[in-house]
Formats: sequence, structure tokens, C-alpha cells
Amino acid sequence: MNPKKLVRPLVHGLHAYTPGEQPKIKGLIKLNTNENPYPPARPVLAAVRAAVDGRLRLYPNPTAEALRARLAELHGVGPEQVIIGNGSDELLALAVRAFVEPVTPGISASRSRVQYFNPSYSLYPVLADIHGASRNPVPLRPDFGLPTVKELRQSGWDFQAALTFVTTPNAPSGRGYATADLDALCARQKGITVLDEAYVDFAAENALALTHKHPHVLIARTFSKAYSLCFQRVGYLVGHPELITALDKIRDSYNVNGLGQVAALATLGQLPYYRANFARIIATRQWLGGQLAGLGFAVLPSATNFMLVQPPGPAAKTWLKELRARKILVRWFSQPEVSAYLRITIGTQAEAQTLVRAARQILRKK
Amino acid sequence: MNPKKLVRPLVHGLHAYTPGEQPKIKGLIKLNTNENPYPPARPVLAAVRAAVDGRLRLYPNPTAEALRARLAELHGVGPEQVIIGNGSDELLALAVRAFVEPVTPGISASRSRVQYFNPSYSLYPVLADIHGASRNPVPLRPDFGLPTVKELRQSGWDFQAALTFVTTPNAPSGRGYATADLDALCARQKGITVLDEAYVDFAAENALALTHKHPHVLIARTFSKAYSLCFQRVGYLVGHPELITALDKIRDSYNVNGLGQVAALATLGQLPYYRANFARIIATRQWLGGQLAGLGFAVLPSATNFMLVQPPGPAAKTWLKELRARKILVRWFSQPEVSAYLRITIGTQAEAQTLVRAARQILRKK
Repeated sequence: MNPKKLVRPLVHGLHAYTPGEQPKIKGLIKLNTNENPYPPARPVLAAVRAAVDGRLRLYPNPTAEALRARLAELHGVGPEQVIIGNGSDELLALAVRAFVEPVTPGISASRSRVQYFNPSYSLYPVLADIHGASRNPVPLRPDFGLPTVKELRQSGWDFQAALTFVTTPNAPSGRGYATADLDALCARQKGITVLDEAYVDFAAENALALTHKHPHVLIARTFSKAYSLCFQRVGYLVGHPELITALDKIRDSYNVNGLGQVAALATLGQLPYYRANFARIIATRQWLGGQLAGLGFAVLPSATNFMLVQPPGPAAKTWLKELRARKILVRWFSQPEVSAYLRITIGTQAEAQTLVRAARQILRKK
Repeated sequence: MNPKKLVRPLVHGLHAYTPGEQPKIKGLIKLNTNENPYPPARPVLAAVRAAVDGRLRLYPNPTAEALRARLAELHGVGPEQVIIGNGSDELLALAVRAFVEPVTPGISASRSRVQYFNPSYSLYPVLADIHGASRNPVPLRPDFGLPTVKELRQSGWDFQAALTFVTTPNAPSGRGYATADLDALCARQKGITVLDEAYVDFAAENALALTHKHPHVLIARTFSKAYSLCFQRVGYLVGHPELITALDKIRDSYNVNGLGQVAALATLGQLPYYRANFARIIATRQWLGGQLAGLGFAVLPSATNFMLVQPPGPAAKTWLKELRARKILVRWFSQPEVSAYLRITIGTQAEAQTLVRAARQILRKK
């Protein structure tokens, strides 16, 4: 028997999402996967260490009850409006499975549609494909701004789409969106709309209030980037209790590991530390943007902990290799909308300085 | 807009899997969710604590590479034959999504069928429902033994079913199955067959060798129970590379938290400690079985770290309450096949003694 024949045809055709490289070589400056350069707060590390004892033998709280309660308080919602995931990626996948029908004869095209802007988080099309849903990528404006409602109508946007993902601030461009503009979009949208705020702590505003106004809007957040907890996989969604209940029914019962729950809960007790880090990262972002602009890079405005830049001289892909040869990892995407750019995570000020020196060297070599 | 209308009709009809209670009251003897009474090995705790530092800000290895390599070595397979999950529950759910078609006109009934014995792990029907697949529960023998192939034919078993789950040793009965019998079943089965060996470390034999013989057989294992790591959510599947590749394509990219990977890897360096615990648990199981039998309980033979017992006197549900009043938690299932029984996790010898004393008190009260 050929076991390949036992795999669903749908799955055969899939290409897995490619995560950014997690290098094993020491001494690399890692500016490729938008991790925070600063460690978790000391009391967070202490809380996690203190939880590492015989209790690891026990199941974690299956609904992350304490963490949900604390997040609900923080955001001024009820705990029944919060669901915790094994990273926000899990929750984005659950949203596809809870709200979108696989493409099926007799089901309207909109009910099977996963819609998103292009470019945005490259996971969305992967999730649509895994589910057997259809993708509806719609271009952002050339400057990565949100199209107007009129422009959307002209470019194949579906206001009835079962599920729309909006990365806000946008990745990979870094561009932030005004809550008023998101509000206008959400007001027109008839299907579930997930505002994926993975990077929002580095932006001037967030759109959480839109979950109060629009029952079909969910906000996705993560502890990974802003809160230096990528390793522990904790994300969450906030929204209407009916939607949260639906997601809750289809998740794994113990989906969030115990030490992740401990770490995230402790994190919420240390917000001033993290806010100070956001300020440092934003300051470095401004400094680095200015330096690179001075070297001839086109630097897009960023409301995140990374920035998209168009390098002068060699092709972006060549820059990727040249920087790597100097032990600096950044990210390059092959999609045509962004293939002329590099996405650079904002590291520490020292890392940014090293990057600028390397860029100068590469330009001198030309 | 009523957001309920935006949820898939399939999801509305679901009942979430009910995990066993994770009590918040201190001082309870917790014999309800099959956790190991012994803590992780000290070097495991030390390894996890040593990993709790600034590195929590980084993404974990997306393919759990080091852990997969070590497990492959342990089981004499290639690393491409191992996939790690956020607990084995995640992997069971992925198997349903990779190998089973949702019920769809034009697709054969077998291709949409999730098949399992009744009783067995109560998650399987939940996973079938979530996916829109059909359930095919087939009764075990009255003594919870595997039916013969002839008996299976008579009871609606589908040898073509897309996916068959076999909990081996069985839960909730505790009964172990001979590899030869599983082999005979697998040899007839045409679809994917997952041998769910969550409890196999407490049994006399395991069926891992069947993955070599049958390319359609996957073995599921977990670090939760035998290796005292419920809190950290690490399970794995072993099987043919084509099947592992299919599962890999549909999982979340960073599905296994970093400290869980660290803990599981360190665990594999301490196997003699865990084997000594298995022996202690088995000794307590024998002692407790004898004691309860002496009090008039019908005690089913167990190859796991729990046992299913039919109490004398009051109904099993009454025993559940009476034991809880004495601060002892056990598990009772409402399904008719097992509603006359209690499932008791094997704790420490001291916990078993406390349980026996409580049982004596309850019987005297009658």
C-alpha cells in the first residue's frame, strides 16, 4: 500500500508556511523574525522559574482562567470575551475553521472565502488552503495604505466574505492604520473581521474598541513580540462571546502550556517595564530609519518593531546575502509586491549600529 | 447583526470535549486525570529552569529538531518519521484533518469515517464532529477486549475507514492489548490506523514495531502521563514519512513551546528514573487492586496508570460524591458502557492507602 494515497488530496497540494530561519550559529545578529531584543522582565523569569517544580506533572488550567480574567480586566471586557491560544497563530487557524466553510458545491462563494490584503501576514493563504477555503487577496495601495471603500469595490474585495484578516499595523510593510479607517472598513464588512494586532504595541493607536462597536470584529494579540515571549506560545483573541464560544468548542482542551500561562500572567504585572522597551525600540527605529535613509535606502514609515526598506545599489536578495556574510540576518520575501525590499527587525541600539556599519561596507564594495 | 449567524452551522452543533476537573482547592487527592504522582526527574527541572532566561524572547525551534532526532534514535526510526505536537491531542486532531474528508456528497462514506472502539478515548468523536466527519464507534467486547475480525464484521466495523483510532492500552478500561492482536487488526485495515499509546509505558508490551510493518499505522505517544509533563504539552507520532509530511504541512509552524521541548529532551536523558516510577506505580496498582477487590469492588485488569473498578453498594456516581466529600477526586463517565464504574488514577502508595480507608468508611456508612 502506498500511504500517500491515504492522505487527503487537499493536503498533497499544500505548501507549508515558511517560518523565518532560527539559526543555530552563535553570534548572529538576528533581525529576521521580529523578536523583541529585550528579555522578559526579571519578575516574569522569576515567576516561571518558581513554577518549575513537581507541578509540571499536572495538567494546566484548560481555559487559562487566571490569564483570561486578567486580560479581560485590562481590556475592559468580560472573561467570556477572551480566548487564549498556543500563540495567536493557533487562533487565526481556529477562526478559519469556525467561521469559513470549505469550498463545497451549493455553498455561496462568500461563505468559503478567506480575505486579506496583499501583502500582509503570509500565513493567511496557508490557512485558507489547509481548510479547503478560497483565498481572496486584495492589493493594498502602492504605499501599503488601506484602500478606500470605493477602491475596494473596484479591486474584487468581498464585503460578504466569511472571514477577513487585516494585519494592523501591517506586516511586512510596518505601516500603521488609523482606527477611524479600520472602523469604516469594519462597518461595511458583513463577515467576521479579525484585526490582527500582533505589532500594535509599537503603534500610536489600537483598535480594540471596535470589538465593542462591531460584534463581528475580533482583535488578535500576542505575547510573542511586544512581550518577549515567542518561546512560550501565548496569544489571544478578544471579541463577542458568541464568537469566542465557537472558537472554544473547536480548540484542543489543553491548548496553552502551563509555563506559558504563568509567564503571560506575570507579564501583565510588569507592563511599565515593557512600555519602556517599546519606547526604546521606537527610538531605535527612528534612529535606524534616519541612518538608512541617509545611506540612500527608501525607508517606509513603521508602526511596528520592524521596518521595510528598499536598499540602494544591489538587489534586495543580494543585500540579504551580504548582510548574512556579516552575521546579520534580516528577512526577504520573494513575493513581487515586496521583493525589492528587506524587512529588518528593530533590535537593540547596538545591533542597529552594527547594521548601519555593515550597510556602509556593502555600499563601499559596490 | 447577530454574530451567531457568522459561525458555521457545524460548529453550533458541537459539544466541546469535557476535560477532567483541575481543582483549585488545596489538599485534594487528585486521582481523576491520570497524571503521574511523581515529579519530573530533578535534572529535567534543572534543565527547564536553566532555559528560563532572556531566550524566552526567541521563537522555539519550529520542527523540534533536537527532540525529534533523539526520539528517532530511541525508537530506531528516522527523524522524518517523527512529528511533535502540543500534546498528543493536537496530533490526533491533525490526523483527522489530514486523512479524513468532511462528509460531502460524492465522497465515499469510508473516506469520511473516523472509527474507534466504544469505550475508548472520548476525544475521538469530538474530533470527528469538529471536522464534519462521521463517527463510527464499534463496541469492544464486554470485557473491553478487542473483538475478533469476524466479530468486527458483524458489528459494523469498516475496514476501509479513512481513520481508525485504537487506544492501546484502552482507556477508560485500562485493558492492555497484545501486539499480535493489534497486528492482525492493522493487517486487515486499509485506512490510516492510529495506535494511541498514551499509557503504554505502564503496559507489558508496545506496538511501535507495527509502524515498520504497516505503512498506514501511526503510533501516538505523550510525555504527559508516564513522563510527568502534562503541564508542558508535548506528544508525538511515529510512522511513515509520507504521513508525517502530511501532518507537518497542516500544523501551526511553532506548535511546540520551547520549554516543553527542553523538558522533553531532558526527560529522554533520565529514562531509568521514569522506569523506576513505572515500577512503583505498577506495584501500587497491584496493591490497590487487591485491597479494593477485598472490599468487594470488581477490579478490571489494568495495563495503565489507572484502573476501572465497579464499586459495591451505592451507585458509582454516589461513590464519586462520597469520595469527593473525603477530598479524593476520581473520574466517573456517564456513558452507559462505563457508568457503573469509577476510573481511579494510580497515585502514590500513600494516596492509595487513603483511598482504601475512605472506601472502607463509605462501605461502613451504608
